[in-house]
Amino acid sequence: MHRLTRRTFTKSAVVATASFALDSFSQTVPSQQQVGIAPIGLGSIAEVFMRSVGKSENAKLTGLVTGHPVEKGKKFASMYGVADSSIYTYETFDSIRNNHGIDAVYVALPNSMHCEYTIRAAEAGKHVFCEKPMAISSNECKRMIDACRHAGVKLMIGYRLHHEPVFLKLHEMVRSGAFGEILQFQAGFYGMKNKQEWRLNRALAGGGSMFDLGIYALNTIRWFTGEEPVDFRAVVATRDKTGKFTSVEETINCLLKFPSGILAECGSSYGQNGTNFLQINGTTGHVRVEPAFTYGDTVLKYEGKTESGDLAGSGAVYDPDQFVTEVTHFANCVLQNAEPATPGEEGLKDLLSVEEIYKAAGSSMA
Amino acid sequence: MHRLTRRTFTKSAVVATASFALDSFSQTVPSQQQVGIAPIGLGSIAEVFMRSVGKSENAKLTGLVTGHPVEKGKKFASMYGVADSSIYTYETFDSIRNNHGIDAVYVALPNSMHCEYTIRAAEAGKHVFCEKPMAISSNECKRMIDACRHAGVKLMIGYRLHHEPVFLKLHEMVRSGAFGEILQFQAGFYGMKNKQEWRLNRALAGGGSMFDLGIYALNTIRWFTGEEPVDFRAVVATRDKTGKFTSVEETINCLLKFPSGILAECGSSYGQNGTNFLQINGTTGHVRVEPAFTYGDTVLKYEGKTESGDLAGSGAVYDPDQFVTEVTHFANCVLQNAEPATPGEEGLKDLLSVEEIYKAAGSSMA
Repeated sequence: MHRLTRRTFTKSAVVATASFALDSFSQTVPSQQQVGIAPIGLGSIAEVFMRSVGKSENAKLTGLVTGHPVEKGKKFASMYGVADSSIYTYETFDSIRNNHGIDAVYVALPNSMHCEYTIRAAEAGKHVFCEKPMAISSNECKRMIDACRHAGVKLMIGYRLHHEPVFLKLHEMVRSGAFGEILQFQAGFYGMKNKQEWRLNRALAGGGSMFDLGIYALNTIRWFTGEEPVDFRAVVATRDKTGKFTSVEETINCLLKFPSGILAECGSSYGQNGTNFLQINGTTGHVRVEPAFTYGDTVLKYEGKTESGDLAGSGAVYDPDQFVTEVTHFANCVLQNAEPATPGEEGLKDLLSVEEIYKAAGSSMA
Repeated sequence: MHRLTRRTFTKSAVVATASFALDSFSQTVPSQQQVGIAPIGLGSIAEVFMRSVGKSENAKLTGLVTGHPVEKGKKFASMYGVADSSIYTYETFDSIRNNHGIDAVYVALPNSMHCEYTIRAAEAGKHVFCEKPMAISSNECKRMIDACRHAGVKLMIGYRLHHEPVFLKLHEMVRSGAFGEILQFQAGFYGMKNKQEWRLNRALAGGGSMFDLGIYALNTIRWFTGEEPVDFRAVVATRDKTGKFTSVEETINCLLKFPSGILAECGSSYGQNGTNFLQINGTTGHVRVEPAFTYGDTVLKYEGKTESGDLAGSGAVYDPDQFVTEVTHFANCVLQNAEPATPGEEGLKDLLSVEEIYKAAGSSMA
């Protein structure tokens, strides 16, 4: 049985309250309209995913793929009512094609494995919901898109902010000119990596904080502008002396310029104590969101002004739950044969920018 | 008689209250210990300066230099008790050497004239308090430093934040490790230029928003780190279509890297509605000041955390008044033959960085 820690208990309680309306609704949805999904890789993000599937009205956990079929596989199978015969290892994964209860997979592996398992899932005829970053290179992204297109399956990248009401509202305000003509974005997302893990290994992660944290800012700004950056300036630095950052940078800052003349400054770090924020300045107004990018117990707060006056508001990321609305959207796309809001092409465009950013950092690599 | 607008009346009332302690103290300072100062150029910043001299205990307005000796000269002479014989024009300026009531000048001219009038003042034997930016090139800065050294007069650059209690407190916290090892600074200062003025003319201003607004962030970050940046990345953009920005950029963003590995992101603009802020991230804490760089009615607010807990506070820039403490410091340096906190070398170092920033912007110039 899964031991509830204080934190997971609190979070579950909050999610349960927040999802009351969805739970009532889910009872009216026929089970044949639920998409069967299997997560690949059962780390912490997959745990969030599994809880979210449990709260969604149109998705159901019907399989598990893990390198630890006994310790992890059986534990989660029992928690979520998955048949033992639907627990796969990386070796037996390809036989998932014969499991008709599994319509789709959720790729929650280290970044360097996203490409391989997305392609293998597509070849097994399964739709793919792949966590961000999509892969560790734009070339991998292209292969993933091609494989899914060839197999006729959906490919969605896990950009949860596209399903967050606060971000959807600000996106609408930006696009409708509520802040006038937009001149500038600033964003930062900082965290601390106190011990060695796969994210600090370039071969597995693709790069440092840019791949895990900076990509939130990059993707949000690309989404809000509706443009692709054309001019890139970047600088990286590592102040840590403990030897954790031998393979990837600790901190990376970049400047982007878009064709319209919009500028953006983005920073991310694995060694900084700092807030995570997004600021948008226009000719007639501005807004700041802080916190902006964290999940969990986060309550997003925004403050600014428009021509019509002061602007302020907030929204908890668990009400509605970003992950639940994201899973629901993906399942709807599968059920209705619709294009996801954040298809593979969205992940590819981010990776193309990430590659330019690292290229621009060039000689500054510490 | 000077007509009080609502705004100047309010500000004067506030300053009067705030300076009560200083006013009481000033009565104990003998008048021969007051430095006689003459502003050169009587624009809006010089008006702030003149009011501040009136509130300082060790400085006194004893002359005026203006291109409008009748309209402006006589008006301010009458307001501040300056003799008509101590009103100079740019043509008669050099005869200021014979006026022994004038110990020093305050250079409040367009940037391109700072160098000439600083040198002419030094040659007339007067100490110089020169507004920021020090000049429009590092070469000019060097000539100003040499002229003042040769003449044996003080040269101070008007970086008022070095006299602001909130900034002094945060500087001390940063330097004493209250936020751990510092990794990053972010800063922005944005304003709107709605009509043509000398600041939009490169020949007079030296450049765009970097010279007037961005320099606050640059100087503060150099001061806080105690280092000079060694790696520069920058991008500029102009979205304005009205033709105001034919000579200088509207917006400029830059990334700086310091020898220790500290990074900084700074943005400034003449066409943005946005807050002005300074953020500092370390390994164990962080702080954000907003507003940070504006003057007038501004109440600086800061918020963050250190290892010992949450951090929050505020301070009005008019209590104590940044300009009054700055003028007082300058006058003390003259009276006590001491080096100003922000000598010419400080302005030179900023200009050397500004030149590198524009060079880095290079091909992105819009």
